[in-house]
Amino acid sequence: MEHGQAACRTLSRIRERRPLVHNITNFVAMDISANVLLAAGASPAMIHAVQEAAEFALHADALVVNIGTLSEPWVGGMRAAIDQAVHRGMPVVLDPVGVGATTYRNQVATRLAAFATVIRANASEILALVGEGGRGQGVDATHDIHQALPAARSLARRFKAVVAVTGPVDFVTDGDRTLEIRGGHPLLTRVTGAGCALSALVAAALAVEPNPLHAAAHACALYGAAATRAGKEAKGPGSFRVALLDALYNLDPADAVGDLDLRAVAP
Amino acid sequence: MEHGQAACRTLSRIRERRPLVHNITNFVAMDISANVLLAAGASPAMIHAVQEAAEFALHADALVVNIGTLSEPWVGGMRAAIDQAVHRGMPVVLDPVGVGATTYRNQVATRLAAFATVIRANASEILALVGEGGRGQGVDATHDIHQALPAARSLARRFKAVVAVTGPVDFVTDGDRTLEIRGGHPLLTRVTGAGCALSALVAAALAVEPNPLHAAAHACALYGAAATRAGKEAKGPGSFRVALLDALYNLDPADAVGDLDLRAVAP
Amino acid sequence: MEHGQAACRTLSRIRERRPLVHNITNFVAMDISANVLLAAGASPAMIHAVQEAAEFALHADALVVNIGTLSEPWVGGMRAAIDQAVHRGMPVVLDPVGVGATTYRNQVATRLAAFATVIRANASEILALVGEGGRGQGVDATHDIHQALPAARSLARRFKAVVAVTGPVDFVTDGDRTLEIRGGHPLLTRVTGAGCALSALVAAALAVEPNPLHAAAHACALYGAAATRAGKEAKGPGSFRVALLDALYNLDPADAVGDLDLRAVAP
Repeated sequence: MEHGQAACRTLSRIRERRPLVHNITNFVAMDISANVLLAAGASPAMIHAVQEAAEFALHADALVVNIGTLSEPWVGGMRAAIDQAVHRGMPVVLDPVGVGATTYRNQVATRLAAFATVIRANASEILALVGEGGRGQGVDATHDIHQALPAARSLARRFKAVVAVTGPVDFVTDGDRTLEIRGGHPLLTRVTGAGCALSALVAAALAVEPNPLHAAAHACALYGAAATRAGKEAKGPGSFRVALLDALYNLDPADAVGDLDLRAVAP
Repeated sequence: MEHGQAACRTLSRIRERRPLVHNITNFVAMDISANVLLAAGASPAMIHAVQEAAEFALHADALVVNIGTLSEPWVGGMRAAIDQAVHRGMPVVLDPVGVGATTYRNQVATRLAAFATVIRANASEILALVGEGGRGQGVDATHDIHQALPAARSLARRFKAVVAVTGPVDFVTDGDRTLEIRGGHPLLTRVTGAGCALSALVAAALAVEPNPLHAAAHACALYGAAATRAGKEAKGPGSFRVALLDALYNLDPADAVGDLDLRAVAP
Repeated sequence: MEHGQAACRTLSRIRERRPLVHNITNFVAMDISANVLLAAGASPAMIHAVQEAAEFALHADALVVNIGTLSEPWVGGMRAAIDQAVHRGMPVVLDPVGVGATTYRNQVATRLAAFATVIRANASEILALVGEGGRGQGVDATHDIHQALPAARSLARRFKAVVAVTGPVDFVTDGDRTLEIRGGHPLLTRVTGAGCALSALVAAALAVEPNPLHAAAHACALYGAAATRAGKEAKGPGSFRVALLDALYNLDPADAVGDLDLRAVAP
């Protein structure tokens, strides 16, 4: 099956099966992450306490761990949920927000990366994870996306994970094969949590598409298509965020294929 | 007075008296809860630390306790605020988000329910609270609203509280009398925190309307009328959320009565 | 240079230099604070844990400390970040949300105020900080803005800080000189976190304009101009929030000067 058609099938399956996505994510991105999942057709839950994270993960379909507003009690919940996910074979998405900015963040991200099915990050974060980033400027990307592709491949091999490095174009790689996704919109960089919400959508895709390379690429392509549509209506980042949720909700699996641009790139 | 007219009077009183609503709520729903309260005319405050929760509750007009993103330090703040509320006779709304999903959540919700003036929840949460839910699928309802009505009545009697079970239609019951509210819009289920925000609005209504059965029903009816109006303009869940806040703000107590549909149902 | 022109230059510099603003802020205002900073052209980061707050503050351009949803672990992070800021000479904005409401809040706000470059607050909070507020009603202003001006001047002298007291008009004072800013829109009081987001914008201005009296006044004027524009399109608080972000993003330094109203007031 062609990649665009397969992405449409992934969207249909999310709508039909309504996967339960367990999010342990940052305070800033919770609202948009939950709303992106609901717009796509998934069922989000945000549950982080160590008293219940593992038990909740027992019944979820996918787990997202996002270190944006890290603290020790939350790391405990992340570890408990990840242990459960690994035990059950449930897919785990790691979003290493702001890795490279502090020693603590680097340590936590590196420890968690070992358990990730997919790592979704921007170029600066990917470079930081392989030790080439220097100091990232906060949580926004300051490196070129193409510069990060070799690092993404190396990271994928080291952690036996799929790595999705997203920006003006997106690359999704398992270290050997790489897919490139075009689409999106520059206003995505002006909406807080837009990248984090994509990580949540990757988790929803993983819950219905067993191939993690494909699932991550499908989520990037669907999100990019919604963003492109939203960009046509938006007057700025406020209306763009509103239009993004509307566009994702209205994306029709039957005719979205023309809007999706996924292709394999040479290794 | 007819129920619709009484609901309009409750809205007028919220606008005039601007009740201070003390919210100890989850991270995902804070933004929409505060914005719903402001749009309706109330004054929200989010204060959870055990160092100040009881002192703040001393001057508030109503308290909301929502267990969506539960953790031990927050339970401490909830208990402190509830103790103060009980001492002062201040109304308390409990929103038992996701009860049924974990043992910890069940324990906390059951302990807190004993102090609630109103319990506002979806069908699956109500069934879980009476031990009939089985495993809820996360925080979204997976049971039919009519199936939950007998459980809501039983719960109301057990805890001597008003129970509002909301969904495609809403039922508000004190165990003996039951009111049914029609209205709302299906997109409410696609906006994160929409139910939690209704719990906050119930608290605002309780601050100005002494009969808790009526206060809860009025809040459901006003919110439902705003949602119906919002649904006429919305293109998806993003624009629906925006339009919901606008509609609530623009709801005119003088002419909203025609949009409200509350009726007593046979016991 | 005339004040309006200088404010436009501050906006240009934020767009060009993209200052990294370190926010330790409340849960309710994180989303709108980050989105206001992104719309203006700055780069926000929300990092609060004591394990990394000081290290992150080492590379930031300005720090915001906001006590809206206070708790002990967060106060630890605030202190660590402030120590670093003082050490480096990085500007610090304090937003003492809800001060006056509880003893704990009063203690923390007073301790932190000693380190602030700018204190941004509403009239009730300013009066509470000088011990004249009585009990504030939650986090919303219940005092007149003109009544708070003498208190703002006294506070500025006591803490050797600039004080911005904002409301229907804004006053920015260093105790000797005072600037008055007109603009804004009444719907700002119906959007949660709108004041907190202005505090974040003040921090972005401080990162590019060395005079803190001017930086704070510029941020108030730019925010007020965006709010005035947003108010012309908005149908209520939902659409106002969306339009505010769009207007801030679209504010053109080359022609915004006509929309800005800053003037010196007699001492």
